[in-house]
Amino acid sequence: MKVLVAVKLKTGVLDPQGKAIGHALEGLGYNDVNDVRVGKLIELDLAETDREKARDAADSMARRLLANTVIESFEITIP
Amino acid sequence: MKVLVAVKLKTGVLDPQGKAIGHALEGLGYNDVNDVRVGKLIELDLAETDREKARDAADSMARRLLANTVIESFEITIP
Repeated sequence: MKVLVAVKLKTGVLDPQGKAIGHALEGLGYNDVNDVRVGKLIELDLAETDREKARDAADSMARRLLANTVIESFEITIP
Repeated sequence: MKVLVAVKLKTGVLDPQGKAIGHALEGLGYNDVNDVRVGKLIELDLAETDREKARDAADSMARRLLANTVIESFEITIP
């Protein structure tokens, strides 16, 4: 089963990567970009076939490894 | 307007970051992870208020900067 884990920086946490992309876009002539935030999109292919068990496993993986829960939040989606 | 650009490696392109995460998850005792793929989730805050214009601008930004279209594909979503 495929499970998507979207990991984003929490609001208020500085995003230097996003700032750099914003400046680069400005340099390319895109002047209407107010802000850019960059996160990770992790696609897990799990052997688990039960949706709830797969969600719980992904949640546990996100808390222990995929996200730094001090500065990041995550969202799990099962397409 | 908020626009999300999900950038993923194309199928068949080796994902060393994904492999490393897979090994780390295995080390933590998660033995049912068949594969892990890692992409970028870029959140653009655009001054544009028209949905189609915002989508076109994000598409152009993705092709020119946000994605390496040789090895990556991208998907634009306007929540």
